[in-house]
Amino acid sequence: MPLIDADRFLKDLNELRQIGKYKTGVHRPTYSPEDMESRRWLMERLAECGLEPSIDGIGNVYGRHKGNGPHLLVGSHIETQNQAGWLDGALGVVAGVALARAGLPVDVCAFADEEGHFEGGFLGSRSIIGELTDEEIDRSRSRNDGTPLRDALAAAGLAGKPRMQLEPGRHKGCFEMHIEQGTQLENAGLRVGVVTGIVAIWQWHIRFQGQQDHAGGTTMAERKDAGLSAVRLLAAIDAEFPRICGPRSVWTTGRITLDPGAPSIIPGVAEVLFQFRDVEVPVLERMEEALRRLVAESNRREKCPAVLTQMSRATPALCDPAMMAALDAAAEQHAPGVWQRMPSGAGHDAQYIAKRMPVSMLFTPSIGGISHHWAEDTKEEDLALGIQVLGDAAARFLAS
Amino acid sequence: MPLIDADRFLKDLNELRQIGKYKTGVHRPTYSPEDMESRRWLMERLAECGLEPSIDGIGNVYGRHKGNGPHLLVGSHIETQNQAGWLDGALGVVAGVALARAGLPVDVCAFADEEGHFEGGFLGSRSIIGELTDEEIDRSRSRNDGTPLRDALAAAGLAGKPRMQLEPGRHKGCFEMHIEQGTQLENAGLRVGVVTGIVAIWQWHIRFQGQQDHAGGTTMAERKDAGLSAVRLLAAIDAEFPRICGPRSVWTTGRITLDPGAPSIIPGVAEVLFQFRDVEVPVLERMEEALRRLVAESNRREKCPAVLTQMSRATPALCDPAMMAALDAAAEQHAPGVWQRMPSGAGHDAQYIAKRMPVSMLFTPSIGGISHHWAEDTKEEDLALGIQVLGDAAARFLAS
Repeated sequence: MPLIDADRFLKDLNELRQIGKYKTGVHRPTYSPEDMESRRWLMERLAECGLEPSIDGIGNVYGRHKGNGPHLLVGSHIETQNQAGWLDGALGVVAGVALARAGLPVDVCAFADEEGHFEGGFLGSRSIIGELTDEEIDRSRSRNDGTPLRDALAAAGLAGKPRMQLEPGRHKGCFEMHIEQGTQLENAGLRVGVVTGIVAIWQWHIRFQGQQDHAGGTTMAERKDAGLSAVRLLAAIDAEFPRICGPRSVWTTGRITLDPGAPSIIPGVAEVLFQFRDVEVPVLERMEEALRRLVAESNRREKCPAVLTQMSRATPALCDPAMMAALDAAAEQHAPGVWQRMPSGAGHDAQYIAKRMPVSMLFTPSIGGISHHWAEDTKEEDLALGIQVLGDAAARFLAS
Repeated sequence: MPLIDADRFLKDLNELRQIGKYKTGVHRPTYSPEDMESRRWLMERLAECGLEPSIDGIGNVYGRHKGNGPHLLVGSHIETQNQAGWLDGALGVVAGVALARAGLPVDVCAFADEEGHFEGGFLGSRSIIGELTDEEIDRSRSRNDGTPLRDALAAAGLAGKPRMQLEPGRHKGCFEMHIEQGTQLENAGLRVGVVTGIVAIWQWHIRFQGQQDHAGGTTMAERKDAGLSAVRLLAAIDAEFPRICGPRSVWTTGRITLDPGAPSIIPGVAEVLFQFRDVEVPVLERMEEALRRLVAESNRREKCPAVLTQMSRATPALCDPAMMAALDAAAEQHAPGVWQRMPSGAGHDAQYIAKRMPVSMLFTPSIGGISHHWAEDTKEEDLALGIQVLGDAAARFLAS
């Protein structure tokens, strides 16, 4: 079992926390001076523990193990959402440093812009698997201020650098440690989550066509109220989905827009942004079937026809059974009875790396579930426990 | 029975239609050069039929009958919505001219800015009953371009003019003829509507407080989805209101706002603009009671508490029974079997005049219900029929 120096791990995390410090969190948007300073800081740490550090043309920082394999890849992202937490991303990168310090044969990577400050998002993990084109880089702009991605890369000193690719066959698998960003562990009194997969999000746009009319001059019988048709469909989804979904499925209406949106006008158009998530394709397909059936029923019943359009249809990234087994065993050894398997409801770099090698993830609890906010935090003892479980699982998996 | 010259009435209407002509409609926003030209045109017509014309400090054009009473007041408004119809308002003003031409003892008034180009709206009818203060005039601005009302009045040559008030006891009642702005008459194959009252609008704001969370990291059981609570309440209103409402009640959700309104974020706050309308206070009170009960049930059932705030609570303006009886009799004589009593769902100048004297309204059908659009229209034969019914009803009421 590798000897993980948890104190040094926490010291590294706290050092990184000083870069772009904002209240108790950090502010390190992708390619900002603070973000680039954190990437230079990481390269120094990687060199310190004997890895060969480099940075590539999209900002990925890579520490390559110099010895023989089999190798593992360990990483996450180092930039943050605006005025956000100190652990989101940084935890998984510094975890790689901790495993390298313990002598494990790991390459460590900080994938650029997982947080999507630039259009597209996941730039680093998509680039390193060969799925980010130069044309997309040419087009992409900052979601914060519209700066072209090319300009931001040039300002960060990255223009013209080659973009690294994963070396086929080099890695036995990839581990990503991350904060949960939810309250499932905390609410259940648990300290470690072994991730079974990263859910796929299937996003939908539903548009109801009614007829805009004066709210005073039009009787209830005459109306074609697009908003009311939308409300009835959403209430029907709410009643039906629990019957057909999986135990961890979620579905969300994020936006309802009534046009024109004035108090005395019957809405002529209603638009709904709807999504559902699950880690299993058969469950996603059942939810799609139910949604299509409910829309068809709405169109038989209502005067305002609904048009359902699928906006995205991702594939869930399933975690590797052998890697999960290694994490289970390590968790049971160090945190007996206070861990569980669980899906990741949020997206992570590992979902792209999963296209090239086995992946797995370990979650630590988020205090109060707070995420994407400077108040995000995790107890130090949970961080120390998590890195020990990760190190042990890595050793078990390498030996398996 | 007075002899109404329907051809002259249509000729007057078509002459007025040339001022600010836009496609088949007109564009005469309040105090615009076109609007002021129409007011001067009206003063000439009023003088032509023997009335004493004047214009006051808010733009009301008044034609005073010089003979003995009892007098009637007949009027509506002459400005239009932007690029709107030729009859909305103009019809009721020119109807007054037609009754004066027929020798009936009527004062005719064009009340300024019924259409609310300026904040507040109904400036003329509120001014003439003494309910528009100088302070409100000082504050009010154009909803089109922000011009202060005082500047607009000055540019129209109205600054410094006194504002006329209704002469107490002078009028036995006020008739307003107007287009229906809906499709009830047309759909029922009817040609005349005798208005029973002008509905009151009771407006509400409903705010649901949930908890904003990541749509991936929060299980369905953990969520406090403010949008979902709003959808369930609105669906419950939709199911309950038909049980307790009156035959002509209407209710409308004009806007639903989910905060922050992003596809992957569980809404932390939902806000709803809701209103209902009826002409009878007991019905309005039943609807309020049902709404309050449904909100209370929602607050017992849901995790997102709803706060209900009343934004406005108007009093319906009931039409005078004797005037309605005169209209009924005249309608039955000239349009046997093709008229009905009906409430007005939209607001009209008569609702303010009703605070000072008995009022009644006559509706003519709107082709396709089109209103506030240049395509608004009414068949010439319905206009001719309507003015005959109005003239006959005025004579009957005066004689009653």
